[in-house]
Amino acid sequence: MSKSLTATLKIALAQCNFHVGDIPGNTAKIIEAAKKAADDGAQLIVFSELALSGYPPEDLLMRPSLEPRINEALREVAAVSHDIAIAVGYPVTRDNRLYNCAGVWSEGVCLGEYAKQELPNYQVFDEKRYFSAGKDAKVIELHGVKLGLTVCEDIWFDAPIAMAADAGADVILNLNASPFHSGKQQERIDLIKKHTSQHKLPVLYVNQSGGQDELVFDGSSFAVNAASECVLQMASWREDQAYVMFEQGELRAESESREAREDGLASLYNALVVGVRDYVNKNRFPGVVLGLSGGIDSALTLAVAVDALGPERVRAVMMPFTYTSGMSKEDAALQAEAMGVKYQSISIEPMYREFMSALAPDFEGLKVDTTEENLQSRCRGVLLMALSNKTGYMVLTTGNKSEMAVGYATLYGDMAGGYGALKDVYKTKVFALAEYRNSISPVIPQRVIDRPPSAELAPDQVDEDSLPAYPVLDDILERYIEHDESAEQIITAGHNREDVMRVVRLVDVNEYKRRQAPIGVRVTRRGFGRDRRYPVTNGWKAGI
Amino acid sequence: MSKSLTATLKIALAQCNFHVGDIPGNTAKIIEAAKKAADDGAQLIVFSELALSGYPPEDLLMRPSLEPRINEALREVAAVSHDIAIAVGYPVTRDNRLYNCAGVWSEGVCLGEYAKQELPNYQVFDEKRYFSAGKDAKVIELHGVKLGLTVCEDIWFDAPIAMAADAGADVILNLNASPFHSGKQQERIDLIKKHTSQHKLPVLYVNQSGGQDELVFDGSSFAVNAASECVLQMASWREDQAYVMFEQGELRAESESREAREDGLASLYNALVVGVRDYVNKNRFPGVVLGLSGGIDSALTLAVAVDALGPERVRAVMMPFTYTSGMSKEDAALQAEAMGVKYQSISIEPMYREFMSALAPDFEGLKVDTTEENLQSRCRGVLLMALSNKTGYMVLTTGNKSEMAVGYATLYGDMAGGYGALKDVYKTKVFALAEYRNSISPVIPQRVIDRPPSAELAPDQVDEDSLPAYPVLDDILERYIEHDESAEQIITAGHNREDVMRVVRLVDVNEYKRRQAPIGVRVTRRGFGRDRRYPVTNGWKAGI
Repeated sequence: MSKSLTATLKIALAQCNFHVGDIPGNTAKIIEAAKKAADDGAQLIVFSELALSGYPPEDLLMRPSLEPRINEALREVAAVSHDIAIAVGYPVTRDNRLYNCAGVWSEGVCLGEYAKQELPNYQVFDEKRYFSAGKDAKVIELHGVKLGLTVCEDIWFDAPIAMAADAGADVILNLNASPFHSGKQQERIDLIKKHTSQHKLPVLYVNQSGGQDELVFDGSSFAVNAASECVLQMASWREDQAYVMFEQGELRAESESREAREDGLASLYNALVVGVRDYVNKNRFPGVVLGLSGGIDSALTLAVAVDALGPERVRAVMMPFTYTSGMSKEDAALQAEAMGVKYQSISIEPMYREFMSALAPDFEGLKVDTTEENLQSRCRGVLLMALSNKTGYMVLTTGNKSEMAVGYATLYGDMAGGYGALKDVYKTKVFALAEYRNSISPVIPQRVIDRPPSAELAPDQVDEDSLPAYPVLDDILERYIEHDESAEQIITAGHNREDVMRVVRLVDVNEYKRRQAPIGVRVTRRGFGRDRRYPVTNGWKAGI
Repeated sequence: MSKSLTATLKIALAQCNFHVGDIPGNTAKIIEAAKKAADDGAQLIVFSELALSGYPPEDLLMRPSLEPRINEALREVAAVSHDIAIAVGYPVTRDNRLYNCAGVWSEGVCLGEYAKQELPNYQVFDEKRYFSAGKDAKVIELHGVKLGLTVCEDIWFDAPIAMAADAGADVILNLNASPFHSGKQQERIDLIKKHTSQHKLPVLYVNQSGGQDELVFDGSSFAVNAASECVLQMASWREDQAYVMFEQGELRAESESREAREDGLASLYNALVVGVRDYVNKNRFPGVVLGLSGGIDSALTLAVAVDALGPERVRAVMMPFTYTSGMSKEDAALQAEAMGVKYQSISIEPMYREFMSALAPDFEGLKVDTTEENLQSRCRGVLLMALSNKTGYMVLTTGNKSEMAVGYATLYGDMAGGYGALKDVYKTKVFALAEYRNSISPVIPQRVIDRPPSAELAPDQVDEDSLPAYPVLDDILERYIEHDESAEQIITAGHNREDVMRVVRLVDVNEYKRRQAPIGVRVTRRGFGRDRRYPVTNGWKAGI
């Protein structure tokens, strides 16, 4: 009988919301969680990837003062490790190379450090910019239990787990900073079960929670036993701490899985709320201000903002013009009242008139075009930014992914702001999310959902006059942007050639707008942030 | 006597300005250059790295239609290779992996393809995001001469050249897409001479020229013989084609080196001109419009724009307000006249007044702060954007690197525009460049250079009231941004602690502004573009 079959270990899984760059703050959070776990009788606590620095630290990893700061933090971790062993992620420099490490600390010393072998350098990830890859497994024995260390991406490959199993691991610890996108949790569980069934080893999957710029981390940490049963499912979209018991070679949870995994629209909505909340709070804005137009995008954005921050930290401003319908004004006021936020109305007519008057000599004889529409939008942007500058409230932008894709937005106008709640949400999903939110409590007037979308920048304007119907547009966009289908492939899939060529062309030529857009919550496999790096100057022609 | 000592080869070096994504256009340019070289009696022509796609193609490399497009281009290259052998860079997919290749084509077939071994994934480079690394040397015999192929970064390491030498190369072809930064050409020559002296092999260094978004490529291709003598120096900052003769085991140029390498301020100024010219032309803007304030940044920007595009494609707009001095108005008008550009003046007073009137209920009882300054700047931004939208002229922004670093700029105000000419130029260098440009012909009124810089957004405002003197500021910035020194290191180097802590803090907290800034010419080792990837949400504290 191997030693581990008699060994027993109570393990805490700590799902924390760290703050990138704030090494002392993250360390304090780690120590607090460790002390609580020790009080609860745990002998080991497992944190997420790069917990000390926060994830992703980006170019902070290149600052020479990173190493002394991490070392200072590790001295504090070592001190508390007399009470409980701590498995935690942090960057480590060895022989002038930087590694993405998981270290196990106990009784004041480091029992060993594992260097991540598989470094993601795709989508939003740039880990090969910073890190060298580890080459070896690391199995650390703690109270007779052999812990096989892995970090995030390692688990998406076969070798690292197989190497840890070969090195005698009894249980795999997988420290993650795995950002959310729709449907990801099922992928993770399926993946871990593939490993557990192959190696007959339990796996603890520990993820962080919270938002960091465009990324949101759902948490959703879990544990799977050697029989490929999910014995623990932790909370989504908030911090959480839970325990498993490893004994007689097997893993079991202290209690039944405490919270069902979220899915679909609820999960998407929560992602938006967490993204906005953490961006605003971690950057210490007192609140947000947004332009409420009476349309569905700003209506949903307002709901997200209030759910993220509470009504007292949200201000809504209606900025009507000639083309603003009475219905829009009514609905905006109704929603603001329903949500209990401060609401005001400021007409843009006087400023618009002065700009047009000053530009009259230049515009004489030229026809009315999108210039005048952009001017309306920019008057609104200037008003919101002035309120923001004076109050410290951040402007929350309301544009959706369909608009950002085709450039149906005004730079320095409706695109002006610090963060975009719906930046990665297609218009069809905006409708679905509005219905979802109203199913919890009715906050968005039904008429806002039902009426045809309009930017109200020209008389009787309706979006679908100048764009394909949103279900068509969004399907073309998703195929082109997220699945990299060519125009011909999209046409073959059944779309009208003219629509496809026009939409694809619009996506290509509007890269310059997206490059100056505020960051916003990423919820798909490819958002318009670090995910998608297209040249602005680009002679690529749509087609094959 | 080895075969190559009797062989003779006339080789053309083709330094072209390609257009990223425009594979048919680039191919046509390659064929034209090849035909000219064949007419001139050359047997081989060498192009730069990824010439078919342009460099850097970024995520266009992930489009599935890339491969058929490249294959189509290679059929055209193959056809013309009956007249002359062609060494050219392009992406190649083999076994589902993408490689950054240099291929040699002759008599309608590919004689061999080399896959780049060293993939840069630092600074502005993301090549590991796209490419797998080659592992082998490739030496191709052409008319009895053995050509050792290498691609760009390979030459910054020892192994690739050594492997090519071991494989019997008589001459090294190095296909580059090497972006400019100040001082880089000397680094390249020193590096190549190190290789030639070690391996006693001549090297042909072929670089592209022209601008691509934030990157500018100086060209400056050259050839070094086995005795480490630079036998050919090609033009900087424009397309060029030149010939060398390989005979009796040695390399010689047809004529004396034709153009001295540019250096210092001239080189820097040319970089700005080429960056602006190619961004405007490749994106097909008819011209540019800029706000001319009477200050030195917009004065230098106007000079760059006119040198890039000619006066008939440049418009300057003075937008005075209460705080605009008479001197500024005079100097702006003087410079516009000296440069022969269309000039007009539009007061921002009426719009400013209307905004303040609309905001009065919100601002009542609150003290005047930067809100009012930003509002002035944003009125100007809206005017310029309206002129841009109506005419198609792109707004050229005028902010410098010192301002962008500390956030001394207004989002959607003076930061509004398509491209920043001075984005990577510190204020002290702005002064030096203005003097340099005036040394060619006097276009910037001397008073603009001599007076203390002021944003003129408040009564009697002078920049150095709120910032350290520019020579001090710029030294702190360069140490922090480009050399990654910590605050303590900068203080130890002799700077005042209070200045350092304040400046470093300003750099850290203004990442959100830079994230929404227009792209602009990169001329230093670390610009504020792809080079520097800091989180916006960032708890890092200045200090050690």
